[in-house]
Amino acid sequence: MSTGSAAGGAGRGATDGARKYILGVDLGGTNIVVGAMSADGAEQYAMHSTPTRAELGADGVVARIVDMLEKSIAETQAKTGATRSDFLGVGIGSPGPLDREKGLVIVTPNLGWRDFPLRDRVGNGVKLPATLDNDANCATLGEWWIGAAKGAQHVVGITIGTGIGGGLILNGRLYHGANDVAGEVGHATIDSTGRRCGCGNYGCLEAYASGPAIAERAREALAGGEPSKMPQMVGGDLSRITAATVYAAAKEDDELANHVVRETARFLGTGIANLLNIFNPEVVVLAGGVTQAGDQLFEPLRAEVRRRAFKPAVDICRIVPGALHGNAGVVGAIATFAQHHGIA
Amino acid sequence: MSTGSAAGGAGRGATDGARKYILGVDLGGTNIVVGAMSADGAEQYAMHSTPTRAELGADGVVARIVDMLEKSIAETQAKTGATRSDFLGVGIGSPGPLDREKGLVIVTPNLGWRDFPLRDRVGNGVKLPATLDNDANCATLGEWWIGAAKGAQHVVGITIGTGIGGGLILNGRLYHGANDVAGEVGHATIDSTGRRCGCGNYGCLEAYASGPAIAERAREALAGGEPSKMPQMVGGDLSRITAATVYAAAKEDDELANHVVRETARFLGTGIANLLNIFNPEVVVLAGGVTQAGDQLFEPLRAEVRRRAFKPAVDICRIVPGALHGNAGVVGAIATFAQHHGIA
Repeated sequence: MSTGSAAGGAGRGATDGARKYILGVDLGGTNIVVGAMSADGAEQYAMHSTPTRAELGADGVVARIVDMLEKSIAETQAKTGATRSDFLGVGIGSPGPLDREKGLVIVTPNLGWRDFPLRDRVGNGVKLPATLDNDANCATLGEWWIGAAKGAQHVVGITIGTGIGGGLILNGRLYHGANDVAGEVGHATIDSTGRRCGCGNYGCLEAYASGPAIAERAREALAGGEPSKMPQMVGGDLSRITAATVYAAAKEDDELANHVVRETARFLGTGIANLLNIFNPEVVVLAGGVTQAGDQLFEPLRAEVRRRAFKPAVDICRIVPGALHGNAGVVGAIATFAQHHGIA
Repeated sequence: MSTGSAAGGAGRGATDGARKYILGVDLGGTNIVVGAMSADGAEQYAMHSTPTRAELGADGVVARIVDMLEKSIAETQAKTGATRSDFLGVGIGSPGPLDREKGLVIVTPNLGWRDFPLRDRVGNGVKLPATLDNDANCATLGEWWIGAAKGAQHVVGITIGTGIGGGLILNGRLYHGANDVAGEVGHATIDSTGRRCGCGNYGCLEAYASGPAIAERAREALAGGEPSKMPQMVGGDLSRITAATVYAAAKEDDELANHVVRETARFLGTGIANLLNIFNPEVVVLAGGVTQAGDQLFEPLRAEVRRRAFKPAVDICRIVPGALHGNAGVVGAIATFAQHHGIA
């Protein structure tokens, strides 16, 4: 996490009276990222990450978030001379499903919360208006606002981690669908009789290309007995293989790991080709650990998309890694607040 | 084709001076449908279908369209007392791919046209402004305007015939994507290593559930030697089996035909579940011959969607047959003109 603009002092003091700021929270099962930005998206301030400590329960986690926000306000004020009234509000990104209208976290398996009024609890805590949106939507909007999809009207964001989440930007705005389910691109079937997915469906993209699915496929490949550095990398305990093990081995030209990465590219390429034919975006932004595999992933992935999707849809679309890395969620949470209030 | 409102005379004459009308054209490889509607979508006039006669070439077909439009104007005037200046323009639906902005048909294999300026040729022919959009988009917008998806904000339309076309309505407007490819729901892969599709991809929904694919699967099933009425229905010539043969046999409880319809429902259900998870629509409208199979199709199809898609997305979504049948395209062409001009 960076602390944002080194030029933060440029606008300090009385000359900056009109500048407004928005705070952001990216709540994850493992870490919370909090920060502030100028409302025009030009400057970042006080971006910090801290462990979530889910074991503290919802009240404890909210207290940590409010504390971090207060520190973010103070740090931003110190850099810019902003007054408290220059902070317009807080955008919050959270794992879903959510009730955006009521500001509720309906259920988050990682945190163990149910119907928790996260938006109002955080907003009341810092006495500022707040908005709540899905974490994958936020990450996509962040890349659209100031990242790899800046300037595009139609964007698909795909975040690959423990699961595969997604966000859709249509005509320059986040698209939520009829009841906020839209964008679940990880739960589109690419093999109707394929692997069982955690969601109950069969053959979902997530069942092939999420982090745990990549690790599982690596273990399956190793069971064939082919030589690989991976067993040695995990001290012989194959259960310790993660997607990161696979990328690291692939970087060292481990043939089996390369094979798993190419397969991952093929699965992702199939899912993305579907999105090109259905949704015809200008940019597909991929985020998450899998993008560490770099061209080893992106080149075969783009080839698979070219092989499958309509040429005009392929020709107009860039398929790129995200530019904001761990900050995409918090930047996007700030952008959702800005968009909700007609600023972005 | 009906000639529209029997109450067409209600608004006749001087009291109807403010009422405006829009003309529509639904151009297909086999038939042209032309008609007029009141600009508010309330009344239909002079809806007529005539063979396209593609062998006349583009000029000959345009002459037929212009002639039909003139007859439609005259017939509507006779019923309503409208003046020529009460006709605002013409919406045209055509097989694609199109360049909507320039009004060009880029290529239509069925008609043999290339880069043909259909919009302006028709508009100039009747001296009225004209718009051009994809036929599947038009059919979807027609169902949204006055049909099975009326009142919904987010709609997926799927038209099943020789191919599987689609249209998306998001936030109450047709969604075209970055360069008009959006909505090709028939070319989303449901089995990544599956049947080769005419588009070059593998395992597209169209390769399983289009009319010709349904007929092909029926022939494959018959090759297993199971008893069925279908061979007799086509005089023993299996090459004459069409999707309509399958629906007719299923209606008579032919077990093999029932099996093919259930399989079709499963394939369509898989593709539609993906669209629910990605787009979270309020309504999915199915049109085309396959809907003749009625509940025999829709019940297992809905069950497959329930089995695969996220529950909140399933709970909010109706999956229904179209209400406008052969008129969806021309009604939707009229609606695209209305929407383009800020009326609908």
